Amino acid sequence: MTKKKNAFYAQSGGVTAVINATACGVIETARGHKDKIGKVYAGRNGIIGALTEDLIDTSRESASAIAALRHTPSGAFGSCRYKLKGLEENRREYERLIAVFEAHNIGYFFYNGGGDSADTCLKVSQLSERMGYPIQAIHVPKTVDNDLPITDNCPGFGSVAKYIAISTLEASFDVASMAKTSTKVFVLEVMGRHAGWIAAAGGMASTEKDELPIVILFPEVTFNKKRFLDKVKTMVKEFGYCSVVVSEGVRDRSGKFLADQGLRDAFGHAQLGGVAPVVANIIKEGLGYKYHWGVADYLQRAARHIASKTDVEQAYAMGRAAVQFALQGHNSVMPTIVRASNKPYRWKVGMAPLKKVANVEKMMPKSFISRDGFGITKKCRDYLAPLMRGEDYPPYKDGLPRYVRLKNVAVRKKLNQDFKI
Amino acid sequence: MTKKKNAFYAQSGGVTAVINATACGVIETARGHKDKIGKVYAGRNGIIGALTEDLIDTSRESASAIAALRHTPSGAFGSCRYKLKGLEENRREYERLIAVFEAHNIGYFFYNGGGDSADTCLKVSQLSERMGYPIQAIHVPKTVDNDLPITDNCPGFGSVAKYIAISTLEASFDVASMAKTSTKVFVLEVMGRHAGWIAAAGGMASTEKDELPIVILFPEVTFNKKRFLDKVKTMVKEFGYCSVVVSEGVRDRSGKFLADQGLRDAFGHAQLGGVAPVVANIIKEGLGYKYHWGVADYLQRAARHIASKTDVEQAYAMGRAAVQFALQGHNSVMPTIVRASNKPYRWKVGMAPLKKVANVEKMMPKSFISRDGFGITKKCRDYLAPLMRGEDYPPYKDGLPRYVRLKNVAVRKKLNQDFKI
Repeated sequence: MTKKKNAFYAQSGGVTAVINATACGVIETARGHKDKIGKVYAGRNGIIGALTEDLIDTSRESASAIAALRHTPSGAFGSCRYKLKGLEENRREYERLIAVFEAHNIGYFFYNGGGDSADTCLKVSQLSERMGYPIQAIHVPKTVDNDLPITDNCPGFGSVAKYIAISTLEASFDVASMAKTSTKVFVLEVMGRHAGWIAAAGGMASTEKDELPIVILFPEVTFNKKRFLDKVKTMVKEFGYCSVVVSEGVRDRSGKFLADQGLRDAFGHAQLGGVAPVVANIIKEGLGYKYHWGVADYLQRAARHIASKTDVEQAYAMGRAAVQFALQGHNSVMPTIVRASNKPYRWKVGMAPLKKVANVEKMMPKSFISRDGFGITKKCRDYLAPLMRGEDYPPYKDGLPRYVRLKNVAVRKKLNQDFKI
Repeated sequence: MTKKKNAFYAQSGGVTAVINATACGVIETARGHKDKIGKVYAGRNGIIGALTEDLIDTSRESASAIAALRHTPSGAFGSCRYKLKGLEENRREYERLIAVFEAHNIGYFFYNGGGDSADTCLKVSQLSERMGYPIQAIHVPKTVDNDLPITDNCPGFGSVAKYIAISTLEASFDVASMAKTSTKVFVLEVMGRHAGWIAAAGGMASTEKDELPIVILFPEVTFNKKRFLDKVKTMVKEFGYCSVVVSEGVRDRSGKFLADQGLRDAFGHAQLGGVAPVVANIIKEGLGYKYHWGVADYLQRAARHIASKTDVEQAYAMGRAAVQFALQGHNSVMPTIVRASNKPYRWKVGMAPLKKVANVEKMMPKSFISRDGFGITKKCRDYLAPLMRGEDYPPYKDGLPRYVRLKNVAVRKKLNQDFKI
């Protein structure tokens, strides 16, 4: 009679600077409860690893390698963009999951991702009820976009916010130095398909005590060329220069992305990139200012070297809480971050039912965007500030961070059939 | 009888993460020799400040504000892109400089810049001889491009190199996580008009012990589409993904920049940007891989948050040495960094005559580029490694670096004429 079940853990969607800190929290906590949880198997490349029975035996990793996940960016086991269809549409995938889980005695399912992953996790959590396979599925929040509902914020976001705020600060200092005879405007493109949380973080480079001319283009605010050019012109007249932080998701009046490459990802989202040169060109044509532009792209979400300490701690805590919830018998839930107070910043772990999380996108509240649509309010600052607070430097060797690469030893397959994705 | 002369200090050209550390070295060292050097006046916006008699009185800044320059990126006094013409072509400017220097009792000229600035400094150093105005002009090296001759390396480069190596490492981890179902290639555009020093630093993310698939496109190597696509394909086949680090200065067989915007800066250099999307598109069309691309632009040279400790120390030392050289009576020279040994890394301050520095560009030695033209050699690694070594974190408050902004109090004008630039 083997009552002790193994656990499955997988990373989903775009990775972050701290998703491995969550993995570290899951694995270390599970290792601390060997009486109740057997091995932690990680899916190689996310849920695909479960479907193809490509499991990684994390028990083969040393304690120090697992501990090093806390300071290593990216997804150590590989991630994927793959969303399970509904049970009715694709029963085959669910049957396969059950076969794999059964073969490897898996009773706990920890799925680490954003809104789409929460939906997949919700479907897995219903396997008990709908297909009679006993499993506890816990979703573990992760997304740089900060767009999951209920939780005050998402692990991954605080570090991107810190990176973008610092980069905006540094680039603003740079362009200020050059503005007399050269570049007057710096345009920085940041992530955020539908929600302007990351773009908002650029505004944190400017403080009440030390104001910097920063213009933010939010996806929540329809792009208006004339108003934008007027704003930039006013800033340059007053300060001599300005920085523009533009979200990849900014759209014009017709609803079209300012920079639409026409590509779509596996989830059907438009694949974006390149709004910075578009905005820079609008400035050049409209105002004649010399410009520079940058696109942070993966650098922003992978920048573990300047991760937020708050973010790392919360990412770890979410992983730990997920395992604790499982041990307490919960299913179909997600640990959340609950803000208890702002000054001093205090937070605690909460719990949300998955069905209230899946497929719900949390936008920036209107009260976070300044009246002219180009900046952030004090309310927004108070929200963002603690999430970016504290540094959590990785160890270095010879000038480079010592990020860990795991052995990722495969678990021997027990099923005889391959599975086509 | 006022024997004690004041000093003039100015920042020129593109700024860096550590040019203010050099300013700190100049000012602190001058302050330590008040018996010989009066005040240090900084040019507001570089040499333009001297021409327009717009001088900044650095003696109005507290010791702690000056000390904070050591950890503050950008040019604290403003920089400019402005190259003095030859004495014959524009005698008016030299006469004006002498008038301003005379009015403010300036006997020391410290000019902090790259190759073009060395040329300006050389011309100023000849004022004694050619126009009878006694001045000692010392050039202080600075350039992220690392293309100054004689000196082993240039302050500013080590920090960019560190930033690019770390960013390439982090982005490579990211794309590795995503490669199974999504992005297979990440393209990062870096600075370096003619010399591939910065691009080479991307190669440092891969080590012998921990190999990563990184393809470098150097400006020194003519772009060959077929060979490039073959290389990327091989990398993706072997590793599942790859990162491409491309210098803004890469040209095709016809000598045209892969991404030429058609603009030129004040020095007549082509103004570049946007080679990353061009390369990404070549990959997509040629191989069909999904890609992401980033453009580091100002972020790379302003990234004081992850500056190299070696770089900060050398930047400060160059400023200190410049003042010491002036006190020793030198004129028309530049302090240099002399590499004494590699393991352990030891360096000392040397001295180069300005006429051997001005307008000479140091390219990457052929022996630093791997035979296939897409990577770096061990020789290159041995050269780069110590320059990126060590972290020198700025102090933080509320999640952001505490960079200083000086008061920059103007010196009262003594001349009655304006001067048109």
